[in-house]
Amino acid sequence: MMNTFGHIFRVTTWGESHGPALGATVDGVPPGVAIDEGMIQHWLDRRKPGQNKFTTQRREADEVRILSGVYEGQTTGTPVQLMIENTDQRSKDYSEIAEKFRPGHADITYWLKYGIRDPRGGGRSSARETAARVAAGGLAREAIKAIAPGIEIRGYMTRMGVHGIERADIDWEQIERNPFWTPDARAAATWEGYLNDLRKSGSSVGAEIEVVVRGAPAGLGAPIYAKLDTDLAAAMMSINAVKGVEIGEGMNAARLTGEENADEISMGPDGPEFSSNHAGGILGGISTGQDIVVRFSVKPTSSILTPRKTITKSGEPAEIVTKGRHDPCVGIRAVPVAEAMAACVILDHLLLHRAQVGNGPRGTIG
Amino acid sequence: MMNTFGHIFRVTTWGESHGPALGATVDGVPPGVAIDEGMIQHWLDRRKPGQNKFTTQRREADEVRILSGVYEGQTTGTPVQLMIENTDQRSKDYSEIAEKFRPGHADITYWLKYGIRDPRGGGRSSARETAARVAAGGLAREAIKAIAPGIEIRGYMTRMGVHGIERADIDWEQIERNPFWTPDARAAATWEGYLNDLRKSGSSVGAEIEVVVRGAPAGLGAPIYAKLDTDLAAAMMSINAVKGVEIGEGMNAARLTGEENADEISMGPDGPEFSSNHAGGILGGISTGQDIVVRFSVKPTSSILTPRKTITKSGEPAEIVTKGRHDPCVGIRAVPVAEAMAACVILDHLLLHRAQVGNGPRGTIG
Amino acid sequence: MMNTFGHIFRVTTWGESHGPALGATVDGVPPGVAIDEGMIQHWLDRRKPGQNKFTTQRREADEVRILSGVYEGQTTGTPVQLMIENTDQRSKDYSEIAEKFRPGHADITYWLKYGIRDPRGGGRSSARETAARVAAGGLAREAIKAIAPGIEIRGYMTRMGVHGIERADIDWEQIERNPFWTPDARAAATWEGYLNDLRKSGSSVGAEIEVVVRGAPAGLGAPIYAKLDTDLAAAMMSINAVKGVEIGEGMNAARLTGEENADEISMGPDGPEFSSNHAGGILGGISTGQDIVVRFSVKPTSSILTPRKTITKSGEPAEIVTKGRHDPCVGIRAVPVAEAMAACVILDHLLLHRAQVGNGPRGTIG
Amino acid sequence: MMNTFGHIFRVTTWGESHGPALGATVDGVPPGVAIDEGMIQHWLDRRKPGQNKFTTQRREADEVRILSGVYEGQTTGTPVQLMIENTDQRSKDYSEIAEKFRPGHADITYWLKYGIRDPRGGGRSSARETAARVAAGGLAREAIKAIAPGIEIRGYMTRMGVHGIERADIDWEQIERNPFWTPDARAAATWEGYLNDLRKSGSSVGAEIEVVVRGAPAGLGAPIYAKLDTDLAAAMMSINAVKGVEIGEGMNAARLTGEENADEISMGPDGPEFSSNHAGGILGGISTGQDIVVRFSVKPTSSILTPRKTITKSGEPAEIVTKGRHDPCVGIRAVPVAEAMAACVILDHLLLHRAQVGNGPRGTIG
Repeated sequence: MMNTFGHIFRVTTWGESHGPALGATVDGVPPGVAIDEGMIQHWLDRRKPGQNKFTTQRREADEVRILSGVYEGQTTGTPVQLMIENTDQRSKDYSEIAEKFRPGHADITYWLKYGIRDPRGGGRSSARETAARVAAGGLAREAIKAIAPGIEIRGYMTRMGVHGIERADIDWEQIERNPFWTPDARAAATWEGYLNDLRKSGSSVGAEIEVVVRGAPAGLGAPIYAKLDTDLAAAMMSINAVKGVEIGEGMNAARLTGEENADEISMGPDGPEFSSNHAGGILGGISTGQDIVVRFSVKPTSSILTPRKTITKSGEPAEIVTKGRHDPCVGIRAVPVAEAMAACVILDHLLLHRAQVGNGPRGTIG
Repeated sequence: MMNTFGHIFRVTTWGESHGPALGATVDGVPPGVAIDEGMIQHWLDRRKPGQNKFTTQRREADEVRILSGVYEGQTTGTPVQLMIENTDQRSKDYSEIAEKFRPGHADITYWLKYGIRDPRGGGRSSARETAARVAAGGLAREAIKAIAPGIEIRGYMTRMGVHGIERADIDWEQIERNPFWTPDARAAATWEGYLNDLRKSGSSVGAEIEVVVRGAPAGLGAPIYAKLDTDLAAAMMSINAVKGVEIGEGMNAARLTGEENADEISMGPDGPEFSSNHAGGILGGISTGQDIVVRFSVKPTSSILTPRKTITKSGEPAEIVTKGRHDPCVGIRAVPVAEAMAACVILDHLLLHRAQVGNGPRGTIG
Repeated sequence: MMNTFGHIFRVTTWGESHGPALGATVDGVPPGVAIDEGMIQHWLDRRKPGQNKFTTQRREADEVRILSGVYEGQTTGTPVQLMIENTDQRSKDYSEIAEKFRPGHADITYWLKYGIRDPRGGGRSSARETAARVAAGGLAREAIKAIAPGIEIRGYMTRMGVHGIERADIDWEQIERNPFWTPDARAAATWEGYLNDLRKSGSSVGAEIEVVVRGAPAGLGAPIYAKLDTDLAAAMMSINAVKGVEIGEGMNAARLTGEENADEISMGPDGPEFSSNHAGGILGGISTGQDIVVRFSVKPTSSILTPRKTITKSGEPAEIVTKGRHDPCVGIRAVPVAEAMAACVILDHLLLHRAQVGNGPRGTIG
Repeated sequence: MMNTFGHIFRVTTWGESHGPALGATVDGVPPGVAIDEGMIQHWLDRRKPGQNKFTTQRREADEVRILSGVYEGQTTGTPVQLMIENTDQRSKDYSEIAEKFRPGHADITYWLKYGIRDPRGGGRSSARETAARVAAGGLAREAIKAIAPGIEIRGYMTRMGVHGIERADIDWEQIERNPFWTPDARAAATWEGYLNDLRKSGSSVGAEIEVVVRGAPAGLGAPIYAKLDTDLAAAMMSINAVKGVEIGEGMNAARLTGEENADEISMGPDGPEFSSNHAGGILGGISTGQDIVVRFSVKPTSSILTPRKTITKSGEPAEIVTKGRHDPCVGIRAVPVAEAMAACVILDHLLLHRAQVGNGPRGTIG
């Protein structure tokens, strides 16, 4: 319950940053989905650290092994275990981290809650846990293909610190062409220098990421606590360092009038069409058939070179400087994680929909 | 599963806008909590429509009845049924609404999903459903008092359309003194004229609401999918018309550097203290003991007098004007709803914490 | 979670014996199922007390009201609230029951667990709660008809105290023709005198009930904890006074050899056929397409006229005699309850199956 | 959901008989429980095949590895991954098994449900899955010790085929002294010859197992679907080959009168005492403080040397003889599995109880 998400397609992640391994136990997988380790590895490689100077230099092979639930290249309908061994558990002196609390880290809350914590690399609160989500997302993508082909899930960065993208310049072709997964080529150029400066000065910066699900059928989601936007918001908020989640207009909806926010409806060749998408593709918690648009913020990592005030376990005042292999903008690596979470949620709702309603949308128009 | 939230304290709401009744079935209630209908009615009265010219003129008594789970003024530990009968089901011609889809309404998605919908007053997608949440929240508040006295939960409006509050002017004493639940007296004055104009012109406007949980112990929440921020985000996003949710800095975290975002730690007389609260009282999904700060946006209601383009069930183009009893700023009534949702989530995590860890925080400092 | 069962079709019951009402909140109902109160009342009437001298003389109208989730005679896919008001809350002196614990009753365990209990008629532990299950089962039956027509669910008594039925004499036509729901006409005759004697002497007796699900497709159920037999066993064991549950051979399987227990397979015109049904229609937790056979025992009610030793709340020794309106064989009224539980479980697995696998069985033979 | 059990202490098992590994993902583990691999291995060794001539000769090291959730010998409160690698995946010709269905096996139902199955050693339906449960049970036992010391959980065989034990001869000291885990030394002697004959003739036989939980506090369990007996029944029924589950008197309760079945109450030095335990330690789904007594039957394995009629995947009639390493009485190895399941359920209810009610029973007597 605590480390699990999903209604039917249920993903339970396990593992710590510096334990022997981590992974995802995935239940509710439809049978007969063609899958192999390479297909999942593809997505893990996108998330893998150490690929350029802007992501942590920790070197992890991040090789996934499928330990169960797949026979002769197909899912069997039984639980799929996706395991990633931790290879770079380099010996390190954790005594300072074990004694002092790092501002902005979960170490103080884990300590206060459990009375015990694994100080090695953040333990369970480390962003390494997200590798398991990416693996599960890779499996979800293949199941989606089998059930609802034509769905595309794209994530990209829309802001790094003070620099946002120009919405008019969004070009999905650009996403893979820069180290920031941004669809705005000019933003990429600006960000390169900006982040280089931050990195050199030992600083860090926040980011904003957007995920779009294109081609999802109308009718996914359900009142009240299985709303599609509720589940997407929870999925994104559960990612490390996320502090805000938006659907469509998001927080900006507070500023609009009803006239400004209206998405007028007309009849297109394949069904209803909308003049705009302020709703982000979801009305009343149920998908409209438009692009589903989710956006979230990632806070700057608290691992910076500027000394900060803190306390020790025994309550003494102290200063702390976080050295080591850290990302100046952790938001970059959140992009493939967010795509994976979106894939898991969409698959789950495809299954939940056919559970309750049967296959495909029920109501017809025209 | 679909209409339920919570891990231990589980609330299932049921009922439609114009059915005979609606309510909340609440399971996992701790036994021995002193409760009566008056204590729940108190909170329902705050949400009740028709209290001033800025909320819908529908007149509902919104009288709650406790049908089970309480004996001689105390909860027994068995399910509590909270029922509210719908008294104002005034006869009305729903034929236009039944035939045309309203832009921004859930009627098109309910139709596409289920192939059937209750057109009377929005059916299940109506904001009337939130009365059941407020009732459940009233019960949660009393259980919280019994388990963790000293927790205070306050919601208030921080923005109406283009007009935000001044954070420096926040004064909780003001919240009850204006029809907008805003803690900024000057904002209240501005909003009065602003909303009057919008109301007269048949327009509507969005809003931003903030909920603060003060006095919650450190240690509430758990990785990964029972994170306190995950559950709060889901709780708020599940409220009608909500499009964005923020914890602490929220979306603004994307703009900050690590130095700007740091909450430094020092030792206070009662435990750790923090120099600031960018985190919104939650680190790694677990409460720090600071104020827990959640914020969300509510879109403007789509019920406006300006005609908008839409289609009929048979796919024909049409125009629609929504007449009737509607709130120009539905965000106002979301304030008590959000407080109720926060109360339910906090109680649930108090119970979940003592399930896994026992009573109270485990780790000690100093 | 505590008062809920089902994966997709989720039934939460609420209410006490002598509270104002009780009911079932049913989520995950497929949309478009034709239903009205009369269709549910039909099943409630079968369970209703006071129909003959062998069931409690408490007179309850047991009239069900549908408060939500149905519009113009069809389910909408939103939660269905089924409420039954308690009309016969006849004033009675509960002071003795409130002070002394009744051997075999849940009053001592409720007290030890919660520190509070509703002594009126057993409160939540009363068999009255099963009326809510029967109502939910009535709804489940209609949904089954819509999804998998041809499924028949029949329950009947196979033993009353020392008198079992003759399996060779089973004739489903007899079930409705005697007050014991037994398919063996000769057993019915024997039981009449037997139970009359027990009733007159203020005694009580146990019973054995069997439920058969005929016409269910192969493929329902799933490893490991959504096995069809696991869910059926839990469903039956959750009924008041049930002490044992069997599938197919049941406890007798312990006495058999592999040769005796084998159900050989051959090919019939419509798929695989089996030479026998020791398995009770379930292999590896998944239905075979044969009759699904569940059996359970109901203990004799502890409400007897013979004085028994007990203690008071203050720990003093005492004697107790339970007077009042009690069934000499509560097993009789468990028959419609068990049918209802079976209907809920079967529907739930029909939905769960199409969630994961899509419509209908996947593997074909021949 | 499908491969998971438990409310708070949640165990998800994964893995197939002949895949690379299998295991249990355990969430909701209380923090600070002292645990290491040796403590879990102890219980796995009791279940391990190949220990005597009466259990399968497949040789599995069954070495458990803790991959997460434990730091420096203590649980951290995060998910514990318990993995057991399959070492004896001996190459074998599965072509016959892949083509023909084995009567009494799950292969036909898996095929009909999923349209794909792993024929190697039974795949997911193999009893090898129970190793994961035993590992989880080992962890549960240590957590129970920490939370409610003094609870003892013992399983033993009470019947093998036509030979039952004498209840008067039960002596727990005998359980470890014979290969059948039976507490009746004379039965053990009889069974040895009986089973030897069955084994030599290539036959198999069923068994009955009883599990007793001694020293559990009163107050565990909750209405209606978290009843302790409901959860225990489901736990046992989910074990491979189980066909019946009983609490206390079990199926025999159908034969008793109210006078015979009464457990009279008196006041003992430490609280209420009962003159007998027909109830099996549970009233109204909640523990009384007496021994909790669960019993279940295991059917004879269908793997026998006598040829049986079956069909092929293409629907042709065929005969099948199951050769290979099989247990003549699979019930023997079910004993440690059942103990493990009981441990998981009891721990789960200890946690659930303190979630809702706080620590310890609430109501006091005397």
